[in-house]
Amino acid sequence: MKELHSLYYVLELAGTFAFAISGATAARKRNLDLFGICAIAFTVACGGGIIRDLCIGAIPPAGLTNWHYLVVAIIAAGLTIRLYPVVQRLNRPVLFFDAVGLSLFAVTGAEKALTYEHNGEVAILLGITTAVGGGVIRDVLLTRIPVIMEKEIYASAALLGAVIVVLGNYLNWIPSDWVAIIALTASFTLRMLALHFHWNLPTPSNDKTGADK
Amino acid sequence: MKELHSLYYVLELAGTFAFAISGATAARKRNLDLFGICAIAFTVACGGGIIRDLCIGAIPPAGLTNWHYLVVAIIAAGLTIRLYPVVQRLNRPVLFFDAVGLSLFAVTGAEKALTYEHNGEVAILLGITTAVGGGVIRDVLLTRIPVIMEKEIYASAALLGAVIVVLGNYLNWIPSDWVAIIALTASFTLRMLALHFHWNLPTPSNDKTGADK
Amino acid sequence: MKELHSLYYVLELAGTFAFAISGATAARKRNLDLFGICAIAFTVACGGGIIRDLCIGAIPPAGLTNWHYLVVAIIAAGLTIRLYPVVQRLNRPVLFFDAVGLSLFAVTGAEKALTYEHNGEVAILLGITTAVGGGVIRDVLLTRIPVIMEKEIYASAALLGAVIVVLGNYLNWIPSDWVAIIALTASFTLRMLALHFHWNLPTPSNDKTGADK
Repeated sequence: MKELHSLYYVLELAGTFAFAISGATAARKRNLDLFGICAIAFTVACGGGIIRDLCIGAIPPAGLTNWHYLVVAIIAAGLTIRLYPVVQRLNRPVLFFDAVGLSLFAVTGAEKALTYEHNGEVAILLGITTAVGGGVIRDVLLTRIPVIMEKEIYASAALLGAVIVVLGNYLNWIPSDWVAIIALTASFTLRMLALHFHWNLPTPSNDKTGADK
Repeated sequence: MKELHSLYYVLELAGTFAFAISGATAARKRNLDLFGICAIAFTVACGGGIIRDLCIGAIPPAGLTNWHYLVVAIIAAGLTIRLYPVVQRLNRPVLFFDAVGLSLFAVTGAEKALTYEHNGEVAILLGITTAVGGGVIRDVLLTRIPVIMEKEIYASAALLGAVIVVLGNYLNWIPSDWVAIIALTASFTLRMLALHFHWNLPTPSNDKTGADK
Repeated sequence: MKELHSLYYVLELAGTFAFAISGATAARKRNLDLFGICAIAFTVACGGGIIRDLCIGAIPPAGLTNWHYLVVAIIAAGLTIRLYPVVQRLNRPVLFFDAVGLSLFAVTGAEKALTYEHNGEVAILLGITTAVGGGVIRDVLLTRIPVIMEKEIYASAALLGAVIVVLGNYLNWIPSDWVAIIALTASFTLRMLALHFHWNLPTPSNDKTGADK
């Protein structure tokens, strides 16, 4: 993580914050106690990165060693608890930062896997994992089917970002900073457009073959 | 994985395919979107092996670096989506390949742990994990109690295969290739017999002490 | 784990036993079969420690290599199956040993992370993970919201124990054995008092802001 530029870092903390808000909000709706809300906020914010770090051999995972993430997650949980009505009205900004976090985590996740000299497939799969892993763990802990599998284009936006990073790295036509910016922009734009226009991936059972239930 | 014979490898891909079909079918029943179906297919096919590789220190996990598994899982998901009515009628062949995958993953999982110089207990536990881990993750993601804990002898067949591998390795009476073939055959046969005769492990609450509910 | 004193070790096996009993009891209520009950008992007893070991790079995890844990978990599962009515009446002793296990796992988990030269944040987070991880996995497998997030002060007692270990290690005022004993006592006492007086962490939605549902 050291060589990430400071702009990246600030954006990543913003993404961590947004993810933690989404976790804390979901936990609060289920009437968890203070500890449960903080735990889910932290897990959503850092869970994907921790799985990535275990898979690439970055021991111990950055989410556990860097206290910034923990503090940001706890602040987000505290704000969600104190200012719940406000947070509920903040739905649109939260979705905005969630999209920021999604695209950033996909790009930085894929880059970190490449930095550890793993191949493109590992980088793409772990870029997606970094971006959506926390949300999947949140939904598993709250015993619901992960929304990323049912909702507007979400994991696909992470996939796009990670693929651009890997392609840019293999082709090596332009500096890697530019690759990262293009990947971020593409991933973020796809997610925001999907949110705005309610784009969904097709659900097969609603197709013509769909008389089954 | 390098030193696995090519027959093994083909069978392992067949098992991967069957596991992916079972994941995609379950995901489709729950109306997940395209990405969700592919993600669950891949997870069922490779999840157990990824956990095994994390536990034995094989970083990065083979399921993430070897694109064959990913491609096989995506093909299986695609077929399940396109040809759903056919796949539903294919229930018996799918159960057959699932049994192939179960016994193969148990045997190769245990062998891989031994190759990494871990002890017999690790090999047995991780052989079972390789074989049933993906299915457990599938059920957790779809929020249902893992069927392997309620169903006809399933994990027990994996246990049998892994135990034979470890015993054969310790006793060292016969070449390890023969041990693998015996373990595979025993595990596969037990699973097929259990399927055919609906053998179940006893559920304690149906015993004489079972007036509780 | 080698340098743990033998008293520690006996207590840790007692904690493992209590955790396994709690897992087996929950699994039996859900009508799982014999294998399912043993698997959940073992997972509750060792799951938290396995995650900790993966995160600190202790490969393979102690829960997989040391057969004592496996045997204790299987004995606990067997007793739960055979003597279910007795175990149900043993609710109070089980809660007692569960509190022993909770505080011990928090303290030894934090100490093990420090032994592997990780920082205080890692030690605290993984101390909590060791103590409550198994219970969280149990509830996820049985598809219910982890009780540790809804119940009397539980994870917070683990937090207290881990924090004392880390503080004692940084301040270095007193021998580490004394630190461990103080941490254990504080954590265990907090948990027993919470059980006795039904102390709960506040649930935000019952506060004045709580008209939402």
